[in-house]
Amino acid sequence: MLNRQVLLARRPQGWVTQADFRLVETPLPELAEGQVLVRNRYLSLDPYMRMRMNDTPSYAPKVELGQLMVGGTVGEVIDTRSAALKNGDIVSGLLGWQLYAAERPERLRRIDTPIAPLSAYLGVLGMPGVTAWVGLELVGPPKAGETVVVSAASGAVGSVAGQIARIRGCRVVGIAGGSEKCRHVTADLGFDACLDYKADNLADALAAACPDGIDVYFDNVGGRIFDLVLERLNPFARICVCGQVSQYNETEPYATRNLRSLLVNRVKLQGFIVSDHMALWPPAMRDLSAWLSAGKLHYRETVAHGLDHAPEAFINMLRGDKLGKQVVKLD
Amino acid sequence: MLNRQVLLARRPQGWVTQADFRLVETPLPELAEGQVLVRNRYLSLDPYMRMRMNDTPSYAPKVELGQLMVGGTVGEVIDTRSAALKNGDIVSGLLGWQLYAAERPERLRRIDTPIAPLSAYLGVLGMPGVTAWVGLELVGPPKAGETVVVSAASGAVGSVAGQIARIRGCRVVGIAGGSEKCRHVTADLGFDACLDYKADNLADALAAACPDGIDVYFDNVGGRIFDLVLERLNPFARICVCGQVSQYNETEPYATRNLRSLLVNRVKLQGFIVSDHMALWPPAMRDLSAWLSAGKLHYRETVAHGLDHAPEAFINMLRGDKLGKQVVKLD
Repeated sequence: MLNRQVLLARRPQGWVTQADFRLVETPLPELAEGQVLVRNRYLSLDPYMRMRMNDTPSYAPKVELGQLMVGGTVGEVIDTRSAALKNGDIVSGLLGWQLYAAERPERLRRIDTPIAPLSAYLGVLGMPGVTAWVGLELVGPPKAGETVVVSAASGAVGSVAGQIARIRGCRVVGIAGGSEKCRHVTADLGFDACLDYKADNLADALAAACPDGIDVYFDNVGGRIFDLVLERLNPFARICVCGQVSQYNETEPYATRNLRSLLVNRVKLQGFIVSDHMALWPPAMRDLSAWLSAGKLHYRETVAHGLDHAPEAFINMLRGDKLGKQVVKLD
Repeated sequence: MLNRQVLLARRPQGWVTQADFRLVETPLPELAEGQVLVRNRYLSLDPYMRMRMNDTPSYAPKVELGQLMVGGTVGEVIDTRSAALKNGDIVSGLLGWQLYAAERPERLRRIDTPIAPLSAYLGVLGMPGVTAWVGLELVGPPKAGETVVVSAASGAVGSVAGQIARIRGCRVVGIAGGSEKCRHVTADLGFDACLDYKADNLADALAAACPDGIDVYFDNVGGRIFDLVLERLNPFARICVCGQVSQYNETEPYATRNLRSLLVNRVKLQGFIVSDHMALWPPAMRDLSAWLSAGKLHYRETVAHGLDHAPEAFINMLRGDKLGKQVVKLD
């Protein structure tokens, strides 16, 4: 029995291509004392991975050439040299783009009684959902009646951020690419409005959709949309900088013009990464689980089948071709 | 006896000129019941006034054409129809570019026992000093051993912000325009280093002066320097956006490139205006007064004489021609 892994073969120049990855077969990892062997069932594909492929320093170490691509996973314990986990236990972790991994239990999170399909623990009940909760709670927090704008609104994080803001009683305006996504964001996720950034008139559309200005911006994209939002902020607005996906593939960063708004409106802005706030994971999961069970939180997934298709699915996700959270089922 | 006032004659296009102002003589204001008449002794000239001359919406109402220029003042009560203040009381307030004003006592601040010349209550013991204290306290706060960068370091706010950070045990690097200001900032104010932004190599100089990166940036200028500082921020850096004086005279805003740093370094940034935080005025004044009395806080003033010279002095201040806090003695 062999492990299969996707390695970083070369650093992308601009857009990622399949040739930036290499699929290899390797021996199963040997278990050290205290470790368990996990057979991954689902792999999460997320925008942050694009940053890790670059040579630029970032908040987390880059992936080295020839090394395993990083990624969140859900899987099953199939061998154990630890008393903390037994065979058959379901665990989430950061085990990367591979079928099997040896890991210590304290770096895994046991999913005791799943209340949703396992893949949801990579999305609405996983890192993206918790990211949305933490960002709003930490940087927002949005008050009932305020206007909240969410970019990448149909994505794994944005879709949850906007729904939480709705639950909190806010007017929620999404921004997404294309009419199908926008329809999904309003019809399925219940946002008050969704703007298509590929349309010509985003500045006008934003003004029309936010007649009372913008109080909270949950930013997943950076760049031009960030700049446009700055123009519509209200005094004492808050900006959660959660992602800058519009910039990850750019070789030249976007030149932002409207920073005057930060002073004029006394804006509070914070860049954040969920892994800095792990103490908030349990309260976030309590809320998210309760809302999901109560039917207040909706999600959509795009499922690729087989590790071989992970690179293609990743590229499609970065292009924004698909709706909802991108996962790979590791059959 | 007549009042003399400086009015906004026209809105500046780019740089302010003397023709943007008009000096007029008007009757003394009549006192309504509950008001006092103040003879202003000093007028404060500050960068924020430049923004008020524009037609653009900002955090405070613009000055209308033909109306009195806004500004902080220190003066003496010379007539009173209120029990709250008596003749001879010294008060600071926002009475504008004029010799006399009628005002209600609750909009004035009585200076009971001055511990410094009255003009200091427009600088180190006034709005600029309190602004520095509030910005650092609210957005920083800087911890001993951290590196704090302050732009417009020889200015009324920056000079105090940097000295407070020194008192707090930080390494403090100023940025100022020209070698004379830089000498003042290090030799007289005790900053660890001061960089001349008019020199060619600001990016290199910043890297050299901040070998451990930047933890707190007290920003008075915005624009290019803000962009350069972003490149050197440490994880969990904080940015107080207190002013953007480099932009006030520009018709096109600077295009900022390095916003990626906000996410990568999980930066907390906040635009703030001291008037939103008046509850912090008393603790700020306690600290500033104690430090000044103890010789831990130093300041420099540039004094213009006579209201007629206020426009010229204001223009010089915006150009950065002078050292320290600009005031006008209203003889």
